[in-house]
Amino acid sequence: MKQFDGITNQHVRELDKRHVFHSWSAQAKLDPLAFASGAGCLLWDYEGREYLDFSSQLINTNVGHQHPRVVRAIQEQAAQLCTIAPAAANLARGEAAQRILARAPRGFEKVFFTNGGADANENAIRMARQVTGRDKVLSAYRSYHGNTGAAIVATGDPRRVPNEYARGHVHFFNPYLYRSEFHARDEDEECERALRHLRRVIECEGGGAIAAILLESVPGTAGVLVPPRDYLKGVRALADEFGALLIMDEVMVGFGRTGAWFAFEHFDVTPDLITFAKGVNSGYVPAGGVIVPERICAYFAERVFPGGLTYSGHPLAMAAIVATLDAMQEEDMVGNAQRIGRDVLGPGLRALGARHAAIGEVRGMGLFWALELVANADTRAPISATHAAAIKAECLARGLLAFFVENRVHVAPPCLVTAQQVDDALSRLDDAFTAVFGSATGA
Amino acid sequence: MKQFDGITNQHVRELDKRHVFHSWSAQAKLDPLAFASGAGCLLWDYEGREYLDFSSQLINTNVGHQHPRVVRAIQEQAAQLCTIAPAAANLARGEAAQRILARAPRGFEKVFFTNGGADANENAIRMARQVTGRDKVLSAYRSYHGNTGAAIVATGDPRRVPNEYARGHVHFFNPYLYRSEFHARDEDEECERALRHLRRVIECEGGGAIAAILLESVPGTAGVLVPPRDYLKGVRALADEFGALLIMDEVMVGFGRTGAWFAFEHFDVTPDLITFAKGVNSGYVPAGGVIVPERICAYFAERVFPGGLTYSGHPLAMAAIVATLDAMQEEDMVGNAQRIGRDVLGPGLRALGARHAAIGEVRGMGLFWALELVANADTRAPISATHAAAIKAECLARGLLAFFVENRVHVAPPCLVTAQQVDDALSRLDDAFTAVFGSATGA
Ligand SMILES: Cc1ncc(COP(=O)(O)O)c(C=O)c1O
Ligand SMILES: Cc1ncc(COP(=O)(O)O)c(C=O)c1O
Repeated sequence: MKQFDGITNQHVRELDKRHVFHSWSAQAKLDPLAFASGAGCLLWDYEGREYLDFSSQLINTNVGHQHPRVVRAIQEQAAQLCTIAPAAANLARGEAAQRILARAPRGFEKVFFTNGGADANENAIRMARQVTGRDKVLSAYRSYHGNTGAAIVATGDPRRVPNEYARGHVHFFNPYLYRSEFHARDEDEECERALRHLRRVIECEGGGAIAAILLESVPGTAGVLVPPRDYLKGVRALADEFGALLIMDEVMVGFGRTGAWFAFEHFDVTPDLITFAKGVNSGYVPAGGVIVPERICAYFAERVFPGGLTYSGHPLAMAAIVATLDAMQEEDMVGNAQRIGRDVLGPGLRALGARHAAIGEVRGMGLFWALELVANADTRAPISATHAAAIKAECLARGLLAFFVENRVHVAPPCLVTAQQVDDALSRLDDAFTAVFGSATGA
Repeated sequence: MKQFDGITNQHVRELDKRHVFHSWSAQAKLDPLAFASGAGCLLWDYEGREYLDFSSQLINTNVGHQHPRVVRAIQEQAAQLCTIAPAAANLARGEAAQRILARAPRGFEKVFFTNGGADANENAIRMARQVTGRDKVLSAYRSYHGNTGAAIVATGDPRRVPNEYARGHVHFFNPYLYRSEFHARDEDEECERALRHLRRVIECEGGGAIAAILLESVPGTAGVLVPPRDYLKGVRALADEFGALLIMDEVMVGFGRTGAWFAFEHFDVTPDLITFAKGVNSGYVPAGGVIVPERICAYFAERVFPGGLTYSGHPLAMAAIVATLDAMQEEDMVGNAQRIGRDVLGPGLRALGARHAAIGEVRGMGLFWALELVANADTRAPISATHAAAIKAECLARGLLAFFVENRVHVAPPCLVTAQQVDDALSRLDDAFTAVFGSATGA
């Protein structure tokens, strides 16, 4: 690794604590780790300590850290042209759109680029409202869609509550058998009842008033809630029945994460609008966007689309998209995500779940998994905040990064992770669980 | 300049038209110019044709195109670490915040980073609502604040209208003597009446209900509406009287554009929150943010700030901020903007205005100017859309880029522009006006 001549973690952390205001946090309670560099599934701090990154940061570095091809593409585009206004044409921009559309289902025609996931959802919602002439947007309580005006109110999780300043948003319960809202006993029942519930919400809100149903294909931050096999197909049918558009938020799950280019492919549905960010260029340069089908492009052929932003189609972000998607394709990272998930990570996490009583459920697909931790396997009461903090601390102490949310550990390594790295992470996780909850059964 | 071996403008434009969905446009009516590379105030298309960029794109490339120091900083950060989650500490992030705070007024303590201007305003509005426990946000009809849920409804210009899905936004008329809403005859009267109007709006909306007054220090897209000398001081006093926070949107005018680091410095006021984007790193990598004072940091010391985003404090964007602000400082670009504006560009545009009857008013400061074009100098009726399109076309035909909005030409070159480049642009503008409106008087 690169040396960081004389720069200490302490210096970097102090600078951060003095000057940087952090997301979703009480500012006095922060104790950030310092990171200087990385490669693949590894990260290093300024003093050379190594971490195994099974968080992919915020589940975005699908090509891993510092993929040489993507780094080079950014450097070359930087040498040529860093920025150009959205109204201009630029080769990287056209090629990025082309690369994305090549992976989208048939019938998708153009890409509208944004800076991230929130504004991708903002603009998809905007399109749905303009095209349908309707107002209401339905989304799930167990969801996260971003922090801007409409996106945060579309969000179902409690971070919405202090931010409810937009109108037209209605929430429904999405399927989650482990904590069923529908008193369901199995997947099929959960699916059927969740769809009946959604139909009832639509009817009660007024079928003709719904512009869009906005859904994460697999809700991520909410807990990797892999939907029952036929749920999304049922939602698609309801959207069609009531003339609403189906927007699938693929910000976290798109571009390889679940072992497919898009997560909805597993469920045999095609949305009307697709939003993306994160994985599209692994977050090497901020980017997101909306993949727009022919009929919506046609709607806006002669009508002005009333949205836009300064950095739409930013050349550096676009160059990173082209290189990321080409690298993922040539190195078969989507196939790797699918195989490692099916053969190594999934089985390994399930085995861990069988060994530790604190692991109430293991859910996931591809390289997108969550361990739901419970104080009591029968009542399914979540572990305490103290235990959740302890698990995080024990993982960090073992140099393992994961994505810790409430009572869950989300495990989502880069798509080029090897079986050996997965084994390594599983053994660190095993030790962390043993440290917090005592010896595993069958250990 | 770099050669773009065999790539034609036609190829790049076709790719764009087929695959890229554009901001604020009817998609069938687009005919984008292709740009391949640039340097300073110059841009080149793929076939080597040169343009003089007096638009700074969307008024963001304050250091000009391809400043070698900023390009190098991006390349070096790319080689080291492209991306890291917001919760981590990273040297570029701490240093970027430090550089920004060093230029802010006393009492500002931390920076919350976003991807652009819209989400900067979203988060400033969020802070104001949380801190005051109030709902309403006042902003000007002649304003633009971004395209996301709250930002677009805070926006006053007509792009708001199809997007009004957020609550709590109230608009007032800001000063604009040339088209006074207040029947004012001079600057002092416009100022006094505009402040009286704002007070009446506050009183009628309920003084205790106003969370924030959000204002562009100098409204940009709305027409470079330099406020009367004492207007902002008057707004500051009203905010204080009613316990509302004053948010100044410095997205377009911050970081040198007006010949000062921040435009509010010209008016002897200090806001409670400052939003920025564009000039902070010239848009080389998408970035924006909020500069947060001590008392708001203190408010969120133990309370969770309910906002955030994946790319907050993105390392590439941060490295570009550090290099941009250092380069601007060492090359005295802010001083250059002030001097060239005062001695060359301002007088030159005023002379142009004296020569062409179609130029109804010349407004601006630093390197931030607008020519307001009228069909009739007495009635001040705007020129027709046909004439506006013709002026744009004649400028482009002469290789001159400016920022064309409605009946106006906004002239805003990079802050390193030379007197000679200004003379060159003025003469192209002169020719364009002559081509559209006939010979100038006194030519
Ligand atoms: C499903 C989903 N949608 C949207 C977003 C928002 O993306 P961003 O943080 O880039 O605005 C996220 C971020 O985690 C997400 O997971
Ligand atoms: C004053 C002002 N605020 C906010 C914005 C929005 O910034 P962005 O396009 O980066 O979201 C702009 C963009 O032009 C602006 O001029």
